[in-house]
Amino acid sequence: MISAGIIGATGYAGVELVRLLLQHPDVKALYISSVSFEGQLITDIYPNLYGLCASKNGAVCGKTTGVLGTADEVVEASDVVFTALPHGIAEQYADRCVKTGKKLIDLSADFRFDEDEATFTQWYKKEWEYPAVHAESVYGLPEMNRERIRCARIIGNPGCYVTSATLALLPALKAGIIETDPIIVDSKSGVTGAGRTASMTNHFCECGESAAAYAVGAHRHQPEIAHNCAKAAGKPCGVVFTPHLLPMSRGIISTVYAPLVRELDTERIRSMYADFYTDEPFVRVLPAGKNPTTKNVRGSNYCDVQVYAVHGGKMLQIVSVLDNMLKGASGQAVQNMNLLYGFAETAGIDMVPAAF
Amino acid sequence: MISAGIIGATGYAGVELVRLLLQHPDVKALYISSVSFEGQLITDIYPNLYGLCASKNGAVCGKTTGVLGTADEVVEASDVVFTALPHGIAEQYADRCVKTGKKLIDLSADFRFDEDEATFTQWYKKEWEYPAVHAESVYGLPEMNRERIRCARIIGNPGCYVTSATLALLPALKAGIIETDPIIVDSKSGVTGAGRTASMTNHFCECGESAAAYAVGAHRHQPEIAHNCAKAAGKPCGVVFTPHLLPMSRGIISTVYAPLVRELDTERIRSMYADFYTDEPFVRVLPAGKNPTTKNVRGSNYCDVQVYAVHGGKMLQIVSVLDNMLKGASGQAVQNMNLLYGFAETAGIDMVPAAF
Amino acid sequence: MISAGIIGATGYAGVELVRLLLQHPDVKALYISSVSFEGQLITDIYPNLYGLCASKNGAVCGKTTGVLGTADEVVEASDVVFTALPHGIAEQYADRCVKTGKKLIDLSADFRFDEDEATFTQWYKKEWEYPAVHAESVYGLPEMNRERIRCARIIGNPGCYVTSATLALLPALKAGIIETDPIIVDSKSGVTGAGRTASMTNHFCECGESAAAYAVGAHRHQPEIAHNCAKAAGKPCGVVFTPHLLPMSRGIISTVYAPLVRELDTERIRSMYADFYTDEPFVRVLPAGKNPTTKNVRGSNYCDVQVYAVHGGKMLQIVSVLDNMLKGASGQAVQNMNLLYGFAETAGIDMVPAAF
Amino acid sequence: MISAGIIGATGYAGVELVRLLLQHPDVKALYISSVSFEGQLITDIYPNLYGLCASKNGAVCGKTTGVLGTADEVVEASDVVFTALPHGIAEQYADRCVKTGKKLIDLSADFRFDEDEATFTQWYKKEWEYPAVHAESVYGLPEMNRERIRCARIIGNPGCYVTSATLALLPALKAGIIETDPIIVDSKSGVTGAGRTASMTNHFCECGESAAAYAVGAHRHQPEIAHNCAKAAGKPCGVVFTPHLLPMSRGIISTVYAPLVRELDTERIRSMYADFYTDEPFVRVLPAGKNPTTKNVRGSNYCDVQVYAVHGGKMLQIVSVLDNMLKGASGQAVQNMNLLYGFAETAGIDMVPAAF
Repeated sequence: MISAGIIGATGYAGVELVRLLLQHPDVKALYISSVSFEGQLITDIYPNLYGLCASKNGAVCGKTTGVLGTADEVVEASDVVFTALPHGIAEQYADRCVKTGKKLIDLSADFRFDEDEATFTQWYKKEWEYPAVHAESVYGLPEMNRERIRCARIIGNPGCYVTSATLALLPALKAGIIETDPIIVDSKSGVTGAGRTASMTNHFCECGESAAAYAVGAHRHQPEIAHNCAKAAGKPCGVVFTPHLLPMSRGIISTVYAPLVRELDTERIRSMYADFYTDEPFVRVLPAGKNPTTKNVRGSNYCDVQVYAVHGGKMLQIVSVLDNMLKGASGQAVQNMNLLYGFAETAGIDMVPAAF
Repeated sequence: MISAGIIGATGYAGVELVRLLLQHPDVKALYISSVSFEGQLITDIYPNLYGLCASKNGAVCGKTTGVLGTADEVVEASDVVFTALPHGIAEQYADRCVKTGKKLIDLSADFRFDEDEATFTQWYKKEWEYPAVHAESVYGLPEMNRERIRCARIIGNPGCYVTSATLALLPALKAGIIETDPIIVDSKSGVTGAGRTASMTNHFCECGESAAAYAVGAHRHQPEIAHNCAKAAGKPCGVVFTPHLLPMSRGIISTVYAPLVRELDTERIRSMYADFYTDEPFVRVLPAGKNPTTKNVRGSNYCDVQVYAVHGGKMLQIVSVLDNMLKGASGQAVQNMNLLYGFAETAGIDMVPAAF
Repeated sequence: MISAGIIGATGYAGVELVRLLLQHPDVKALYISSVSFEGQLITDIYPNLYGLCASKNGAVCGKTTGVLGTADEVVEASDVVFTALPHGIAEQYADRCVKTGKKLIDLSADFRFDEDEATFTQWYKKEWEYPAVHAESVYGLPEMNRERIRCARIIGNPGCYVTSATLALLPALKAGIIETDPIIVDSKSGVTGAGRTASMTNHFCECGESAAAYAVGAHRHQPEIAHNCAKAAGKPCGVVFTPHLLPMSRGIISTVYAPLVRELDTERIRSMYADFYTDEPFVRVLPAGKNPTTKNVRGSNYCDVQVYAVHGGKMLQIVSVLDNMLKGASGQAVQNMNLLYGFAETAGIDMVPAAF
Repeated sequence: MISAGIIGATGYAGVELVRLLLQHPDVKALYISSVSFEGQLITDIYPNLYGLCASKNGAVCGKTTGVLGTADEVVEASDVVFTALPHGIAEQYADRCVKTGKKLIDLSADFRFDEDEATFTQWYKKEWEYPAVHAESVYGLPEMNRERIRCARIIGNPGCYVTSATLALLPALKAGIIETDPIIVDSKSGVTGAGRTASMTNHFCECGESAAAYAVGAHRHQPEIAHNCAKAAGKPCGVVFTPHLLPMSRGIISTVYAPLVRELDTERIRSMYADFYTDEPFVRVLPAGKNPTTKNVRGSNYCDVQVYAVHGGKMLQIVSVLDNMLKGASGQAVQNMNLLYGFAETAGIDMVPAAF
């Protein structure tokens, strides 16, 4: 049993962590902070949590007071710290955690590029102030890095689109069955991906009954996907990435296209994918005839994958779906925590997705 | 640890039970049946369950084969049987369970009227064939009947609208602070309430971006609400009930209006409600200034309630919200199972609702 | 052919007026202003209008430059001025219009209470600065005031909820078939009713898949509904009004309950309603068995009404639906303009609602 | 002024035609038929049309009785016949129209492949019975075939996805700036595209809050897109087409990827597209920085297009949006009617799209 802390607990990724950790069997205490709402009760901002913090109802009470403190208080009190902050802020907490023997899982982009500061700086317009912490950070995609994660102290939790794209491509790239340029990733996300801050982008009347592409050719998840692909393929990859906003709250679907090196049929490729992910607790390679659907993973940590040989066997098409708040963010962060501490990898995130 | 069975596992209430019981800590085995899909895997009909029955992923595997058998097989193998069937079918299984020392929780209307066959027959156009089982059935609203439920063998699980209306009215009726005629219950439900069978009523393009009243003055939940109110008030109650269909999947909100017997202010009434529900694990009386919102209970077994003295203190208005699939149906059925077997009342249904 | 102007053209009511007037056969020129976006093209803020202002496509071009000017410029150039502004600002423009022989239609609450400044001030916290313009303003509900509107210079366009409630109650109150206290109005609105300004209230992830009551016992449309009812009934009315927010963009449904003075059957009341509205171009009293549905009036200026004698013939229940942006706001404003100028009452607002 | 008829008036494309033609200034009478609902009033099936057929309200009344007759009656009474039927049925009506000097616009796939019966038969599993009518049919995409449409008697109205993909690709293919294999078309559609027949696919609770690909590598619109591309390019084209279902009623967005023959910058390509479509009334090439959004064309006949040179100038990406019921089906059919009869091309379909 550990104590966990969340810096930035009132953003969407932060409050989803609160929800997950309140129910986690190996977390005994939870500390939370927020710059915007310091001193308030989180239940005043998120009434879904009424009675579930320091209160009477249910099994989860007593684990937190529900009072939003300061980041310092959170670091002080916690064994593991989750940072759910804008990009470029987590470094200082990572440095402090390393120095005090704590662990940190960052949900921003700060630790997603290993030691490649140049790419980070190019896309996020910020330089590193604590290079040492980057040197020992591990990219927190368990399906790529499980053993390294187990021994790490600083985890860079992957981007939501990136997780869906990488899990779609990983087996094919490792097996070398696809060309590495161009790989086209056409992704579609629910609105939680745009965060909690109210704007015209997430106004119900603007995004309801509507779909649009955005940040075409310029989204920050493109270099992260390319970075992952290159690691898997062992060579640079040319990734064309386009995100879209859909009228739903949760869920990402990525439709990925890559030329096959040689003609292969669908069953052969599916078999290869099923083998690759056979021991993975959260990746489900669907049987023939079943298309991934975001609804079928909503509220769970699963990523469902399907493969199709199309264009006369010359093109591999992969569709992957996940819940951007779970496997795409906070669920994956908890999966990383479980690995860091040797808990059951599915502890606290083994929710069965609902049918509707 | 018990074995549980679900007859009618592929309707919406049935599959929600599957999901809940797969995750229930006191259920060791799960048996399921379906007339329409006998012999098939439930994962073929509900791909959200892939890999979660007899398969590799997660903590839940091994509890069921996922094969849909017959009702007879389910009764045979189970300690407790859930019937999620059209009205008028559960009787025979209740009779058999009573005779074989098993317990049954019925999610249809068959056991919702205690021994009042006349009302049942008037509204559901069917006579009872096994009167004896009705004589010993208990109406499964824990907030009204907890002690009787603990000792029962047959439970009639309440209707979804009925639960929201009854929990809204119970404290006021028990305290005698409202007139009992007319009590106006204006309820609004998500589309799961209309069931799984495809129809124009639940066509996305018919009910999306739309709201409508239906069954005005003629909905079968009206007599059940009136029945409950009469029990609480100790005299007949005049209930005007109107259901509406809203463009969302889950959730019921009931806005209830009843004349106050004498002028009372909001705080006094809220305090009375808070006291009444103080030991209830699943009813949350909200603090001043907070309006119940279906989103805040979505995916959980909570019912949130707020009270307002309006019309110059002459009218009590109550708003209650719940997830029609949880506290309004399958979650409440599991709560009843927990009571029947002496499990923790919140076991398997203590999910923290998500903020979005 | 007249010139029309819109002060506040970039709010939701304002831009809906732009859309309607661009297509209006009797409007030859359109002038628009905005404090927030002065000097910009409205097509930059509302790309749905691309190419439809001073541009090549379609029949509507040439009617406006699309440049957002100042309020002064709009008043100067227009025969009729629409003010779509926060409450308490329109007075000065009304005064100016009266003095220069122009007409003004105000979509705020400023002219909704005839000469009852006390009620306006109580609810809107503002005193009148130009009492004279109020003395000659007319409340713009054509079904109540058609002949007075024809001769008016200043129109106070009704509130959206108010229109739906008043049209539901008008025939019954005029006929004296219902008690006037309590009249319960339970209304539900789409999110456009909350306006364009981004906030947590209209965040897709907050209001999607959710329903809630708000401003219980305290909404500003309550006194306006009561005011209308009193005029229709010839005596004070006790109105209990509750608004709800639904997960859809457009549409209001009001479910209204009032005790019948004497028992009446549904058909008798429907016949009375059908007679009352027989010459109204925009009120449709539905035939027996058909429930009003917001979808069926979406995008049109219609208000659909259905009546039900319930509670054993002791209670009248009425359901009305309208599109809050059309008959609830901008469509009704155009209807008023048509009356002011003797155009066909349906000109520019005779759109057939779509089925989906 | 002509008389128009619709065979199959109660499907989604059919009833949208009813709505459009009721409001069309050059259509004096409208005849409708339905096999399923023969003899009934269309207002009983589509209550949005109440009072708008042979009735009192508005400008549109008197144009039709609203009674659904037989196909024979429709053909007999009409100058132009619209067939909105399952694939493979329109031929006989086309033959009859040709023989009696009438014109026919078919919304099924029957006349979408010019004289290429083999492709039609391969995908639609049906052979032609009236080859002569195919010989003189014209494919009804005005942006490709305007002059031929003006002189035609039989029009094959394009598929919804096909229109969005073809309008995205036409300028680039004509100019020869892209490679013709592989062209990747990743399309996403609202649920109206799946038609009116109730099924699990369009159940609100199945497709709400969800997104999925379907018919991967096997959708019937693929050969039609490839057919159009080949005509534009003057050579065979390799098109990979994937449709997706989104949780909205109306709208298609197509994201199209094709390798550039030589490096070109975005502005150059946009200028080329703007020139190509400069005289088109219904295609809007958006200015720099604006992404097409289905909401911005909802309810209108517009197709909005944007271009992007991505992947270091090596790939052309095009995004197009349209309303699948308007430019994707019934609106385009009316546009074709306007061309056939020399009406203003925008007559009856010049609706300004709403902002929300």
